[in-house]
Amino acid sequence: MPGPVQSIERAAAILRLLAQGSGRLGLSEIANSLGLARGTAHGILRTLQMVGFVEQDEATGKYQLGAALLHLGTSYLDVNELRSRAINWADALAARSGEAVRIGTHLQGKLLVVHHVFRPDDTLQTLDVGVLLPMHATAMGKVLLAYDANAAAAVPDGDLEPFSRRTIRTTKELTRALSGIREVGWAADVEETTVGEASVAAPIRGYGGLVVGAMGISGPVERLCDPHNRPRPDLVTFVRDAARAVSRDLGAPRW
Amino acid sequence: MPGPVQSIERAAAILRLLAQGSGRLGLSEIANSLGLARGTAHGILRTLQMVGFVEQDEATGKYQLGAALLHLGTSYLDVNELRSRAINWADALAARSGEAVRIGTHLQGKLLVVHHVFRPDDTLQTLDVGVLLPMHATAMGKVLLAYDANAAAAVPDGDLEPFSRRTIRTTKELTRALSGIREVGWAADVEETTVGEASVAAPIRGYGGLVVGAMGISGPVERLCDPHNRPRPDLVTFVRDAARAVSRDLGAPRW
Repeated sequence: MPGPVQSIERAAAILRLLAQGSGRLGLSEIANSLGLARGTAHGILRTLQMVGFVEQDEATGKYQLGAALLHLGTSYLDVNELRSRAINWADALAARSGEAVRIGTHLQGKLLVVHHVFRPDDTLQTLDVGVLLPMHATAMGKVLLAYDANAAAAVPDGDLEPFSRRTIRTTKELTRALSGIREVGWAADVEETTVGEASVAAPIRGYGGLVVGAMGISGPVERLCDPHNRPRPDLVTFVRDAARAVSRDLGAPRW
Repeated sequence: MPGPVQSIERAAAILRLLAQGSGRLGLSEIANSLGLARGTAHGILRTLQMVGFVEQDEATGKYQLGAALLHLGTSYLDVNELRSRAINWADALAARSGEAVRIGTHLQGKLLVVHHVFRPDDTLQTLDVGVLLPMHATAMGKVLLAYDANAAAAVPDGDLEPFSRRTIRTTKELTRALSGIREVGWAADVEETTVGEASVAAPIRGYGGLVVGAMGISGPVERLCDPHNRPRPDLVTFVRDAARAVSRDLGAPRW
């Protein structure tokens, strides 16, 4: 078995670094952040620039992500079977529930949104496709933590990042929550990411029954929850039915 | 100056290959397409898999693009100044013209769509962001060929790929068309990409007046053109005004 190719690992680390924060960094900042010699970082950056993965601003000399990545990202979506199988069911779920629908998958300890159907009304909404969300503070993320061993292994031990007063903060509390999710087969997030917002999600299973993603609705607490802040049972049923339908299309056994 | 890093160039070539066609390829197909030894290709693929740029299907063993690319592609959009400055003007142009608006930039001989505002009606439309369009057959592409030397240098000599009966087919014909575009300051494509469809585009200039992208509307010929198949002057003015407004926001001198 060949070992990993160091220069490719370093190139990927540079791209991840440029995807954070302001998105524009100078050569020294990049070299220092990754503990690379300036010459090494420069060679990698020039190559990334040649292949269109990185662009250099002429005025400031700073580096930023390049246009070729947008095309690769879109091509990923085209070939993503989870998304292509789920699109029609996601539209139907949005229509039935009257709420925004998102589909997510695990990426390096975060939840990556691969599809987003806007809430069927005329309000201004922003497309979340490609966004990374925290696993422990979202219904979709908790579903993946409950069922996907790779996702669960990526959660750091110790304290979890709080996003609101209601975010789960300790791994002990999270373990208890995940066991509850496995018992009922769905997850909710009531103001755990954002005050006033709630979400409900269920697992999507692929061939052989393995959980490959999550599907859920999100919206204002007063619409998704009853007066006791519990997710409305009719909405939970809509979400679970939709996730089950996608799973069957992906070749999962009936459950 | 350090030379390009060969393994990163090869990794980029593999990703470009996976972005084409069906999007799923086996190790031998990848190695053969790029003239690499199987062991070399395998080492690069394993590394790309580790960093999330490639995924391997468990059932077939075939490789496809990975989820990390989607996040990088979206992050490129977040940092893209052309797009962020143009968003409001694109919305206004769609409202004024009643047509779909797209913004594009040059990527390796093609036109990359970086923003797309749907036609303001209730018809079903597909998001074109991340799509690559032919330069010589679209209004936006011809604008870039007319004004952006790097884009023009990427056009191969000889015959051009035909998409319809009206597509420009020779570099000689293209050169004449581009000189006409530079004279009037805007470009049109009347059924040159798709029968029944037309588009009108104007250049977006950045700091110092360099053309950094194009902005245009597209839709059915009978709405965009007069009875002689010429773009309607009112729509041309809307497009040119919008592109000029974006250019001013990007720091271009007034023209």
